[in-house]
Amino acid sequence: MAKYVYSFNEGSKDMRELLGGKGANLAEMTKIGLPVPFGFTITTEACNKYYEEGQKIDEALVDEIYEKLAELEEVMGKKFGDTEDPLLVSVRSGAPISMPGMMDTILNLGLNDEAVLGLAKLTNNPRFAYDSYRRFIQMYGDVVLEIPKTKFDEIFDTQKKKANVRFDFLLSPEDLQIIIAGYKELIKNELGFEFPQDPKEQMMGAVMAVFRSWNNERAILYRKLNDIPGELGTAVNIQAMVFGNMGETSGTGVAFSRNPSNGKNRLFGEFLVNAQGEDVVAGIRTPVEIAEMANVFPEQYAQFEKIAKVLEEHYRDMQDMEFTVERGKLFMLQTRNAKRTALAAVKTAVDMVEEGLITKEEAVMRLEPAQVENLLHPMFDEDKLKEATLLAKGLAASPGAACGQIYFNASDAEKAAAEGQKVILVRLETSPEDLAGMVAAEGILTARGGMTSHAAVVARGMGKPCVSGCSELTVREEGRELIIKNRIYREGDFLSIDGTEGTVYEGKIATVQAGMSGNFGTLMTWADEIRKLGVRANADNPRDAKQAFEFGAQGIGLCRTEHMFFDEERIPHFRKMILADTEEERREALKEILPYQKEDFVGIYQVMKELPVTIRLLDPPLHEFIPNTDEELMALSREINIPFEKLKKKALSLHEFNPMLGHRGCRLAITYPEIAEMQAEAIITAAIEVSKSEGIEIVPEIMIPLVGNVKELQYVKDVVDGKAKELIKAAGVNMKYLLGTMIEIPRAALTADEIAEVAEFFSFGTNDLTQMGLGFSRDDTGKIINEYLAKGIFEEDPFQSLDQTGIGKLVEIAVKLGKEKRPGIKLGICGEHGGDPKTIDFCHRTGLTYVSCSPFRVPIARLAAAQAAIKEGK
Amino acid sequence: MAKYVYSFNEGSKDMRELLGGKGANLAEMTKIGLPVPFGFTITTEACNKYYEEGQKIDEALVDEIYEKLAELEEVMGKKFGDTEDPLLVSVRSGAPISMPGMMDTILNLGLNDEAVLGLAKLTNNPRFAYDSYRRFIQMYGDVVLEIPKTKFDEIFDTQKKKANVRFDFLLSPEDLQIIIAGYKELIKNELGFEFPQDPKEQMMGAVMAVFRSWNNERAILYRKLNDIPGELGTAVNIQAMVFGNMGETSGTGVAFSRNPSNGKNRLFGEFLVNAQGEDVVAGIRTPVEIAEMANVFPEQYAQFEKIAKVLEEHYRDMQDMEFTVERGKLFMLQTRNAKRTALAAVKTAVDMVEEGLITKEEAVMRLEPAQVENLLHPMFDEDKLKEATLLAKGLAASPGAACGQIYFNASDAEKAAAEGQKVILVRLETSPEDLAGMVAAEGILTARGGMTSHAAVVARGMGKPCVSGCSELTVREEGRELIIKNRIYREGDFLSIDGTEGTVYEGKIATVQAGMSGNFGTLMTWADEIRKLGVRANADNPRDAKQAFEFGAQGIGLCRTEHMFFDEERIPHFRKMILADTEEERREALKEILPYQKEDFVGIYQVMKELPVTIRLLDPPLHEFIPNTDEELMALSREINIPFEKLKKKALSLHEFNPMLGHRGCRLAITYPEIAEMQAEAIITAAIEVSKSEGIEIVPEIMIPLVGNVKELQYVKDVVDGKAKELIKAAGVNMKYLLGTMIEIPRAALTADEIAEVAEFFSFGTNDLTQMGLGFSRDDTGKIINEYLAKGIFEEDPFQSLDQTGIGKLVEIAVKLGKEKRPGIKLGICGEHGGDPKTIDFCHRTGLTYVSCSPFRVPIARLAAAQAAIKEGK
Repeated sequence: MAKYVYSFNEGSKDMRELLGGKGANLAEMTKIGLPVPFGFTITTEACNKYYEEGQKIDEALVDEIYEKLAELEEVMGKKFGDTEDPLLVSVRSGAPISMPGMMDTILNLGLNDEAVLGLAKLTNNPRFAYDSYRRFIQMYGDVVLEIPKTKFDEIFDTQKKKANVRFDFLLSPEDLQIIIAGYKELIKNELGFEFPQDPKEQMMGAVMAVFRSWNNERAILYRKLNDIPGELGTAVNIQAMVFGNMGETSGTGVAFSRNPSNGKNRLFGEFLVNAQGEDVVAGIRTPVEIAEMANVFPEQYAQFEKIAKVLEEHYRDMQDMEFTVERGKLFMLQTRNAKRTALAAVKTAVDMVEEGLITKEEAVMRLEPAQVENLLHPMFDEDKLKEATLLAKGLAASPGAACGQIYFNASDAEKAAAEGQKVILVRLETSPEDLAGMVAAEGILTARGGMTSHAAVVARGMGKPCVSGCSELTVREEGRELIIKNRIYREGDFLSIDGTEGTVYEGKIATVQAGMSGNFGTLMTWADEIRKLGVRANADNPRDAKQAFEFGAQGIGLCRTEHMFFDEERIPHFRKMILADTEEERREALKEILPYQKEDFVGIYQVMKELPVTIRLLDPPLHEFIPNTDEELMALSREINIPFEKLKKKALSLHEFNPMLGHRGCRLAITYPEIAEMQAEAIITAAIEVSKSEGIEIVPEIMIPLVGNVKELQYVKDVVDGKAKELIKAAGVNMKYLLGTMIEIPRAALTADEIAEVAEFFSFGTNDLTQMGLGFSRDDTGKIINEYLAKGIFEEDPFQSLDQTGIGKLVEIAVKLGKEKRPGIKLGICGEHGGDPKTIDFCHRTGLTYVSCSPFRVPIARLAAAQAAIKEGK
Repeated sequence: MAKYVYSFNEGSKDMRELLGGKGANLAEMTKIGLPVPFGFTITTEACNKYYEEGQKIDEALVDEIYEKLAELEEVMGKKFGDTEDPLLVSVRSGAPISMPGMMDTILNLGLNDEAVLGLAKLTNNPRFAYDSYRRFIQMYGDVVLEIPKTKFDEIFDTQKKKANVRFDFLLSPEDLQIIIAGYKELIKNELGFEFPQDPKEQMMGAVMAVFRSWNNERAILYRKLNDIPGELGTAVNIQAMVFGNMGETSGTGVAFSRNPSNGKNRLFGEFLVNAQGEDVVAGIRTPVEIAEMANVFPEQYAQFEKIAKVLEEHYRDMQDMEFTVERGKLFMLQTRNAKRTALAAVKTAVDMVEEGLITKEEAVMRLEPAQVENLLHPMFDEDKLKEATLLAKGLAASPGAACGQIYFNASDAEKAAAEGQKVILVRLETSPEDLAGMVAAEGILTARGGMTSHAAVVARGMGKPCVSGCSELTVREEGRELIIKNRIYREGDFLSIDGTEGTVYEGKIATVQAGMSGNFGTLMTWADEIRKLGVRANADNPRDAKQAFEFGAQGIGLCRTEHMFFDEERIPHFRKMILADTEEERREALKEILPYQKEDFVGIYQVMKELPVTIRLLDPPLHEFIPNTDEELMALSREINIPFEKLKKKALSLHEFNPMLGHRGCRLAITYPEIAEMQAEAIITAAIEVSKSEGIEIVPEIMIPLVGNVKELQYVKDVVDGKAKELIKAAGVNMKYLLGTMIEIPRAALTADEIAEVAEFFSFGTNDLTQMGLGFSRDDTGKIINEYLAKGIFEEDPFQSLDQTGIGKLVEIAVKLGKEKRPGIKLGICGEHGGDPKTIDFCHRTGLTYVSCSPFRVPIARLAAAQAAIKEGK
């Protein structure tokens, strides 16, 4: 026969699925001999059975519960409903996965009109006894009998007024008895039956209420948000009550075994004499720091300190504990692994390795990759933040906190920064003309634009804090002022923004930063020892490359050559190239661009030294470089001295209905091989130059984008090889380079065997692969994706985390075919997924060589890659 | 040791790869005892060897050739270079696949200064002998020695002028001797050596020239255009010369065993007394019909007639033959399967089955699917066409010939047609407003717009002839006139257009049409017996459905519901639906659309009876229904009484960067389930109504477009099922329907197992699958695709014929996964590829249930499906 109820001494921490987290931990504590009030757990299977049987508890289960109850009575030496020394219990839910505050709890169960007398006599504290009874009826009425809480509150408040007392605890036993009578009357009026006096009946009602609470709205919503399956069910814990409010020798507390905020290795928490947990939460009395417990209850404090150590060693992790002292005796009510900040997670993990408590692998598993970002960007000092005034919320467009004086255009911002001011650039929205101002600023704040607006994308690229789309702002760029909540802020005023949260604060708030050194550096070193996947960065210029290098990137996985062309000095030449009518004219314009392009590569090689740098040839459709409004075209016409009509005609001819699927990528190189030639020249001559000047061996990796057919690749390879070989020969050096391709078109993945005959490496461009494989234009379908997430059609945004079922299959096919044809082929990923931990786990399992992500995600990727290796090893 | 040379009596017709087409056929004719001048064939392997060895013929091969030459001399009883009766030979190329006129031929080889005397004596015709010698030197000088032909012509013309004769054949033997001397001098001056007198040297030179000709520019281009591999190589045929120009008992002719134009079973060809083939080609003398040979050479004619029958029976196909009568003796010089018109192909195939010559399977293989279209559309009467004046060439936008009076706008065209005129609608370009005019017209002619312009797409859909993008036309719509080549044509003037050729003719040209009856009907019946693949049609309205039904479609594979909304009466309601701010407003507008939608389905069901009809729910992005210029919006604003600003705002909000990958397909149904509900209602109520009225059982197939994730399908299925079940229940009937999906997003193909859990059928939307799988927007990349075709990156336009390597792989994956999950799943294809024979062959091999194509392609598909089954059986 199945067993549905376990006494605390029958379970263990490994039975979480069956007993729930709380029940398993109570059993575990009991097992290792800690002072836990005895009790038993009704399993999650019983909960599922309850639902299967149409929300009923069958006879067999009732019998089993009563059996365990009898055992509890025996262990405690008390009887349910006893008029001398009644057994009181708490009834608490406990799911396998923690759902804090999501379900209901009932305390003091077992009290009735008789037992309350016994309790009063026993404790010699009638006020305590009646207050407990009154609380029990109220909780039971609300949770089990489902009578609105406000109706109880009314009765309570009426009596409080009558008694003319300010605080609840000033009510006399008589007042409480009146309230109890009122409560019972209320219940009878509402339901037509009396408040149950039989403790067993009370208990069964409470058990069913806990089962029911598994499917209340709050719980369902929480599970949906946290991806917890509904089939798990909840367990019910029935435990003998202990009281922290039995006078000055009693008390209650919650404590962490270390500081969950910064990880310091000493108890952290709060304690309150003569109180129950409820009182702490209700905020009626202010608890004191746990350390002060040593003064009041030195013996119990010492005992608790020892228990905390025992639990830490037992669970091998920081613990979050609840305890009660009842008339001088310490009882442990709960323990669980503690939630903690990134800072604390890092310090604790490293400390515990040094203490010999956990292995490096375990330490590496202790930090959530998502938390890493917090460590890299400046954060507001928590203490200072408490006093700050929140002005508005926008989109968390680029993480990190910044504070500075506000300026409303790029040149003002630049000037102020040059004078040594810290600047926040405020714009309606930014455009490429604002670039210099963005570089000069500490952070960017815009009133319009989404997560993929210019401000957001550029700021993320720069690693600068940005809050975008902050629609509560009225920005008057001309008037150099902004209005939030009817307050005007003018040029030079201080604001603080937090791009991790999307918040805007008034005035200055101090910031702090963890950086790559210290404990975090140590943890990263361990991660590097463990991981098998390489980690590179996407960087388009020496500045980003340097940032990536400092964050531990082992190379550049994607250097986009086109971003370089948007620079003010360069774009006129690039536009001339686009507007050329003949190959000769195009070659003329390209000649002007060549030195710039080479200069960038020189800078990147100098930073990366012998680490690999993958440079992608020109990718975007040419229309992106030509303005699209008549006004802008008119201005451009004057600037570069080409008739407006010609410009307009060219702009129209470049227009495409679906530019995503249009004339871009290698298709440009096939139509205009001279562009690829120029780029090859810049890549190769820069490499020759830096190899010589630094005395190192650089092996550039040239990447051809948007290949769908091996013949496209072959065509461009011939162009690149022709130029490269000529230059290498002319320089009289012996330089190697690799030529590979993006796998970003579904057909490329499907024919990767053919492509691997020509390509020496693949880099999965999962952005485009997702767009084409799913038929979702990233620029257009943000709204649809949100709708899909809301309707449960998508579990995750496929542009954030790789769709492993669909797009992942394409990657797997390509990896398999590519390796078959060219066993040593280098395989990378350079879409934005490259920095997503789940995707990194997938890349590890699929056998990729490296992931490449934005510089600020490099440490995340290093950690996630190590965790993937550890998980696989298990 | 490998054998590189075969005498004609050593080979057979099955040795085409080795001996080339001509050589194999000469051997075959020799084998079956026909009078063929003896000779031998140097194999294609020898040609490849020649190239492998750096364009050299090795000793062993020379010896082998000389051995066969000795045999030839013996058989003919003549010696090479003999001064009495010299052996003369022709040297002809002959590749495994016919490349007409692509390579060079040399006649009269073996003549030299001595042999010419023998020939003169023997034939008693010095003019003939010297003329033969002069022709030989000229041909040899041109082909083998590579001296420009014009230089020989100069010498010839100079002498002709000196002799003061009008025709070549009036030159005297002395004139010819002077020319010969001049030719020889030219050669010596050009090359520094004498024209070779040794016939063996002549022969080896000619053999190498033939080998070289395999790689001349013409040949390479032809192979490229016709997809013939360069590794095949060419054979060389060396054959004893016979002369049709040896006087009045000699002659030459070419003839087909049946009429290649209409297939009538009697000899068809031309004959010329005392002439060589060359003379016929040169047009110096006019040949007579082959039948007249019976009068001149009754005996030889009878013999040839018999031989023609023998050859037909032997080759089991219509033959195209060349022969010569030399002094009363008939020689066969060549035979090959005849090229023929579609009409002739059909009649011959059916006749031959009736004659017991070939099987039905063979008959079905005899018609090229590409030829079928010619049979379905009206064609100009060939005889009348000869006399017509070609005015201009545009794009062959929609096949078929038409003639009528020209009108310049839709309403004039409608009016004229209503009065019984045949009308050609002439427009700069057409727009949806011209629809009524297009319906009324026999054909459409536009000055602008490509193969996918409105005119082209709509005309193809209607099966009407259309010439689009005819840029030579100046169309003055207002002035009701058009100008071609400085001639003005006014309203009411007659023009004839051929949409198969893209040609425009002056005046009226009579048309003819084959239709589905007669021989073609018979052949189609046989095809239906053989094929395993079903054939359905894409049809959006009862008219197209009727056409499809008449062409033998076994159902509708794709009924696009959105085309119905463009109708003048309906589009205002549809626009109101789009512009609605609330679900209620949308439901209001949908209520107006419902009756129209239902009416269409009723019409289609009435045509198709119990044949399956697959109806696709709304697919295109909504912006397609809203005008995009401010002027049009302004007009719409007045028309539907909605403020311009609101319209403009909505139009902007509907704008997408990549609409192809945007808010369309099932995504619309997920955002606006009420649209899917309305469509489901129309589909189901129409089916219930027609089932009742016709007393038949209709099982509608409801198809959800653009599914990439099974959850999308499930979501829409729930909506459709909800409505459908409610309606079926309310009607009190027992109706079934199927619900399936398009597979047109790569992810759908990759996760077809998941999708097949919900979908009862798949229909491959290979247009979108190609766009997304290849990353090519069809609207944008026409130019790139042409460039790719020119550069050899694409072998075929992937939108015309399915890319079997890439997109085909997706189809295969989906078929495999779909069948695994749901073994009986119906699998169709409804992209435009559904009418392409190569794609149909692929669909057959991949195990699809049916293909669906435009009505006019249904017969092509029936034939292609049968051919696929036959090919597989082999």
